[in-house]
Amino acid sequence: MIKTYSYAAQKATDKLAPFQIERRDPGADDVQIDILFCGVCHSDLHTARNEWNNTLYPSVPGHEIVGKVTAVGANVTHFKVGDLAGVGCMVDSCQHCASCAEGEEQYCENGFTGTYNGPVFGGENTFGGYSDKIVVNEKFVLKISHTDNLAAVAPLLCAGITTYSPLHHWKVGPGKKVGVVGLGGLGHMAVKIAHAMGAHVVLFTTSPNKREDGLRLGADEVIVSKNADEMATQTNQLDFILNTVAAPHNLDAFLNLLKRDGTMTLVGAPDQPHPSPTVFNLIFKRRSLAGSLIGGIQETQEMLDFCAKHGIVSDIEMIHMKDINEAYERMLKGDVKYRFVIDMATLKEQASAA
Amino acid sequence: MIKTYSYAAQKATDKLAPFQIERRDPGADDVQIDILFCGVCHSDLHTARNEWNNTLYPSVPGHEIVGKVTAVGANVTHFKVGDLAGVGCMVDSCQHCASCAEGEEQYCENGFTGTYNGPVFGGENTFGGYSDKIVVNEKFVLKISHTDNLAAVAPLLCAGITTYSPLHHWKVGPGKKVGVVGLGGLGHMAVKIAHAMGAHVVLFTTSPNKREDGLRLGADEVIVSKNADEMATQTNQLDFILNTVAAPHNLDAFLNLLKRDGTMTLVGAPDQPHPSPTVFNLIFKRRSLAGSLIGGIQETQEMLDFCAKHGIVSDIEMIHMKDINEAYERMLKGDVKYRFVIDMATLKEQASAA
Repeated sequence: MIKTYSYAAQKATDKLAPFQIERRDPGADDVQIDILFCGVCHSDLHTARNEWNNTLYPSVPGHEIVGKVTAVGANVTHFKVGDLAGVGCMVDSCQHCASCAEGEEQYCENGFTGTYNGPVFGGENTFGGYSDKIVVNEKFVLKISHTDNLAAVAPLLCAGITTYSPLHHWKVGPGKKVGVVGLGGLGHMAVKIAHAMGAHVVLFTTSPNKREDGLRLGADEVIVSKNADEMATQTNQLDFILNTVAAPHNLDAFLNLLKRDGTMTLVGAPDQPHPSPTVFNLIFKRRSLAGSLIGGIQETQEMLDFCAKHGIVSDIEMIHMKDINEAYERMLKGDVKYRFVIDMATLKEQASAA
Repeated sequence: MIKTYSYAAQKATDKLAPFQIERRDPGADDVQIDILFCGVCHSDLHTARNEWNNTLYPSVPGHEIVGKVTAVGANVTHFKVGDLAGVGCMVDSCQHCASCAEGEEQYCENGFTGTYNGPVFGGENTFGGYSDKIVVNEKFVLKISHTDNLAAVAPLLCAGITTYSPLHHWKVGPGKKVGVVGLGGLGHMAVKIAHAMGAHVVLFTTSPNKREDGLRLGADEVIVSKNADEMATQTNQLDFILNTVAAPHNLDAFLNLLKRDGTMTLVGAPDQPHPSPTVFNLIFKRRSLAGSLIGGIQETQEMLDFCAKHGIVSDIEMIHMKDINEAYERMLKGDVKYRFVIDMATLKEQASAA
C-alpha cells in the first residue's frame, strides 16, 4: 500500500484537515499519479458537508486532477512514467452495460465509481484529489496535451466536460445561437467552449458587473436576466440553452427564449425544486427541458484535446491546501473568478514538515 | 354570405344552444364543405366555458370535422364537388415564417388561425365544426381516404394528429419501447398509432378496469400506475413516453421509466402546474421533458393516410347535436369510450324543423 497525504472531512460539521490515507499498489492495469493540481468543485463542498445525504466518511473530495505519472502496471500501454495525466469524476464503471459499451460511462447502468465517495449506488469509499497521489485504472486516466498553465487545466476535468458534453451532444456550432445561464465555474467554461465551437453565445447573468467579463470570455452578447427589456430581446431566439445555475429559479423565463424545437439543458441540481415550468411553454414551441451529467471518458479526452487546440483553460485562483476551508466559504459567496485550484505542492510541503 | 346553422355558447356560463351564423362565400382558393360529423374535444369545453380566459363569444367549438365538398373556388385544384374532406384545428396561418415554410403551421410564428376562437394571438372570431357548413382555404383542407366509418375518422383531425405528430417526431417504430400515459380520447389514439408504427406499447392507466381495453386497442402491456410494483418493472425501460394526461400529476414517476436519452412529451396542459420534476431524474440519464402541439397540415395528411392504410379510426360514441351539453358533463367524468362525435344530420334536421 502507498502512504498518501490528504485533506479530509471526518464528519459533516468538521472542517477539512490533514489526514493520512493509503492507496493500493498499482495493479497490472493501473497508473500511479503524483498529483500536481486539483480544482475545487461545488460538489466537493456538497459532499464534505453531506448536503446530498450520501457522504461516506472520512471524505477526501477532489475530482479535477492533473498530475504526473510515477508508475504504471504491466498491461498499461497508453501512459509511461513522466507523462502528464488527468483524472476526472470517475475512476471505474461496470464496463459491460449498454452505456459503458457506448462510451457513456457516466450513465453506467450499474453505477460508475466516483473519484471520491465511492460507487454512486453505494459501496466502498474512494478518496479524491485533495491528496498527493492517486492510483487509477488506465481506462479512466486522461492524456493532457496542454504544455503549460497546468493548474488551469485541472478544472476542465469536471467543469469543462460538464459543459462540453451537452454543448456537443446538442450539436452546438456555427450558425447556432446558444444561451449560457450563470457565470460561475461551469458557466465561464461553457462560454469559452461554445465560443470556440463557433456558436453565437449569449450569456445570462444576474450581475450587471459581470458584463465586461462575459464579453472577454467569449460571449457575443450579455443579458442581465433581471432586466425584462433585455430578456425580451431574446424571446424565441435561441437554439439551445445550457443552464448552469443550481439555485432554484424561474425556468420559464429562459424556456421562453428558445426557438421551436429548442432545448434547455440543466447541469446544476438545486437542493430545493425549481418552480414548476409552464407546460404551455413547452407545447407551443415543441421545446424540451433536459439534464446532462459530466461526459464519458472518450468524450472527456476529446474535450481536453479540443481545449488544448483552442488554447482553452479555466480562469483560476490558486490556493494552498491549508486554505481550502476558507475557499469553501468564498465559493458559497460566489467570490471566485472562476475556479479555485489547489497547488498540491503545498500539501507535500506541509506533509514533509510534519 | 352563406346562412349556417350552429350550436354556440353566448357566454362562459351558458349552455350551448342553436345559433345562426354566416360563412363567407367561397373565394378563389376556398373549399365549401357540408359537415357530416364533428368530434368533441376537451378543448371545445375549455373554450366554450372560457377556462383558458381567451374565449371570443359567441363561441362555436369543433375542430374534428369530416364532410363533403359542395363548392370549390376557381383556383382550387385538389378538391372537387362530392369529395370527402377533413378540417382540423387550423384554418389559416401566415404562410411565410420559418415554421410555415417547413410545414409546421401549428408553430406559425405569427400565430395560426384556429378553426374556432380566431387567431391564437387574438383577432376576429372564427366558428368551428358544431355547424352544418364551413368554408376553408384549400391549403387547410385534408383529403379523407377512409371509405367507411366516417364518423370515427373525425377525431383523427385533432386527437389523431396530436398523438401521431410527437410519435413520428421522436421516431417511434420497430424496436422502440413506448409508454402512453392515460387512456382517454388522446391516449386511445396514441396506443393504436404507436402499435401500428411497430413499437412495443406500454399503456399506463390509473384504472385497473381499463386493462382489457388497453390490450384490445393494441397495448403490449398495461401498467396500473397506482401500483408501485407494476411501475417498478418499467424503470429505465422506455425509449419514449407520450403523456396525454392534462390533470396535474407526479411527472417523476414516469420520467424514472425512461432509458438514458429518453424523452417524455406532454400533450395535455393542466390548468394548475404539475409538481416540479426532480432535476436529478433528468441529469442522471440525460432525459428530456418536452411538449408538442397538434401537427402541420402535411403531417396531418400523412397521419390520415397512415390511419386509412392501417384501418385505424377512433372508438366513438355518436351523439345528437342537442345532447352536446350532456356529453360535456359525461366527458368531465371520463364517461366516454373514447370520443363523442356529433352526427351533424341531427343539426340539419333540427334546423329544417325550426
